Amino acid sequence: MAAQILALYQPPADVAAFDAYYYGTHVPLAKHIPGLRSYVTNRGEIAAAAGTSPYHLVAMLNFDSVEAIQAAMASPEGQATLADVPKFASGGVVVLTLDLQTV
Amino acid sequence: MAAQILALYQPPADVAAFDAYYYGTHVPLAKHIPGLRSYVTNRGEIAAAAGTSPYHLVAMLNFDSVEAIQAAMASPEGQATLADVPKFASGGVVVLTLDLQTV
Repeated sequence: MAAQILALYQPPADVAAFDAYYYGTHVPLAKHIPGLRSYVTNRGEIAAAAGTSPYHLVAMLNFDSVEAIQAAMASPEGQATLADVPKFASGGVVVLTLDLQTV
Repeated sequence: MAAQILALYQPPADVAAFDAYYYGTHVPLAKHIPGLRSYVTNRGEIAAAAGTSPYHLVAMLNFDSVEAIQAAMASPEGQATLADVPKFASGGVVVLTLDLQTV
């Protein structure tokens, strides 16, 4: 079934600047990635079961398969999106590729 | 729109024992949680963009709303599922509640 790029952004130095850049520049860029089926983020604060959330923003980019992700990220649009990340991810980011299964 | 419990399991002491318990005991228990719409995990190893993945298993439990998650986790089935987590999450786990938006 589907596969996902899961991007876990740690708290940035300037939250307002991060959010403005993320939604104003990064999302529009990423939406050009070929094969992207849906793009979902958290709205508002992330609640953690224990303590505070280690992540400020969670982004889920859904594709048809791991192979589709590999092709997408090798494309010019994918490369441009990757190159954009260091411009705003001041707190660091964990980027994972998940082959998904419904259990 | 939807909301999600995102559980990020750090590498356990015994991967085979973790996987056997997770899929053999925890998933069947969690599937009784009222209001659970879908339950998705990664299949196989998680690839990280940099270094190795800090997480062995990512689980996404999807509900209709944050309110539905709160009601679900307060239910006997939700409480039983929460109580089960320490029995296998030997490496630790980050559990987040996300109000989701399509961007």
